[in-house]
Amino acid sequence: MSQPYTPTPRTRLVREAERAVYDREAAYRILDEGFLCHAGFVADGQPFVIPTSYGRRDDNLYIHGSAASRMLRQIKDGVPVCITVTLLDGLVLARSIFNHSMNYRSVVVLGKATLVDDPGEKLEALRLLSEHIIPGRWADSRQPNERELKATSVLRVPIEEFSAKVRVGPPIDDEEDYSFPTWAGVVPLEMVAGAPIDDPRLDPAREVPAYARQYNRKP
Amino acid sequence: MSQPYTPTPRTRLVREAERAVYDREAAYRILDEGFLCHAGFVADGQPFVIPTSYGRRDDNLYIHGSAASRMLRQIKDGVPVCITVTLLDGLVLARSIFNHSMNYRSVVVLGKATLVDDPGEKLEALRLLSEHIIPGRWADSRQPNERELKATSVLRVPIEEFSAKVRVGPPIDDEEDYSFPTWAGVVPLEMVAGAPIDDPRLDPAREVPAYARQYNRKP
Repeated sequence: MSQPYTPTPRTRLVREAERAVYDREAAYRILDEGFLCHAGFVADGQPFVIPTSYGRRDDNLYIHGSAASRMLRQIKDGVPVCITVTLLDGLVLARSIFNHSMNYRSVVVLGKATLVDDPGEKLEALRLLSEHIIPGRWADSRQPNERELKATSVLRVPIEEFSAKVRVGPPIDDEEDYSFPTWAGVVPLEMVAGAPIDDPRLDPAREVPAYARQYNRKP
Repeated sequence: MSQPYTPTPRTRLVREAERAVYDREAAYRILDEGFLCHAGFVADGQPFVIPTSYGRRDDNLYIHGSAASRMLRQIKDGVPVCITVTLLDGLVLARSIFNHSMNYRSVVVLGKATLVDDPGEKLEALRLLSEHIIPGRWADSRQPNERELKATSVLRVPIEEFSAKVRVGPPIDDEEDYSFPTWAGVVPLEMVAGAPIDDPRLDPAREVPAYARQYNRKP
């Protein structure tokens, strides 16, 4: 069971507070539907934001280092990070420019990332990461060997301090603007998977597995 | 015309250097296809990463403050920011777990954001932002008034120091893995627009404009 959560001054939403979600379960549903995060860290006073995949188990996020050596050099000692996940659901077209918006669901996690040293936890985190992106793929793949595990760093970020924001529904215009002569509404946006493309070197007799043919992020 | 660009030590890619793109035109094509960025800034040593929309003119990015007051409080004095734009194009399923990857195009811009004070540049930046997200909408909307312009902050981030990364194509496996008995290839991913949803308070006689009905980010 997840614990109750009270926002800190750093994660309490000041603007658009009506969009705030402080419920841990709701935040985890967003984290579980997404698989790409933007990880922020600081080096010499400069913020860096790097896209990378992630996995979750209980109250921890895991990211791995193959794509982010610059980040890893900084954060393996437990330097502060920010992990942000954004699911974009639509463009909100209001009558006034000012009230245009987007429908989205986002989670911002503030925490200290630490290197996962234990070989068992590391392998399990890599499995989580893989299964988070495309469930079923891990068991169908050639498993990591010793050399590959050594070449991969895994970081754990506890989900302690976080905020989530959700905007849904139609535009909200100022009352006097509802008579303005223009279309208003929502253009829905969705990330969809296309038909899988065989590797040119694939045995043509091999069929596309269901997890690739019917790939879908929706719960 | 854009200027030639030489990466700095902060933006030269160390890992996966074969994916690096230092061509300004190529980076701008990525920035122009996307419209959601993740903006990073530092407050009291803690990195924050916030999703927000952006626009571009020449060698400047513009973001606006309605969704990011926390960021604006920090960066209006010219504090360092990182603006990252990521377009996700597919999941790359290799034979080995280790060689799994994603097809993507991303740009990381390091710079100092400054507040746009000039009323003319501010209005023009808001128009750029709007037209960047959905071309044609600005002229169809009720224009910003004095009060709304005062309530909106706009930040300019010069695109001076940046890096871009692009991965395309099939998985690259270790030679000895090509005989491993599993499917391999790419699951394409794309952000697509659905049928526009009328605002419940819309005059039913009003038709959906083409820019909303045929919304498409591809150039």
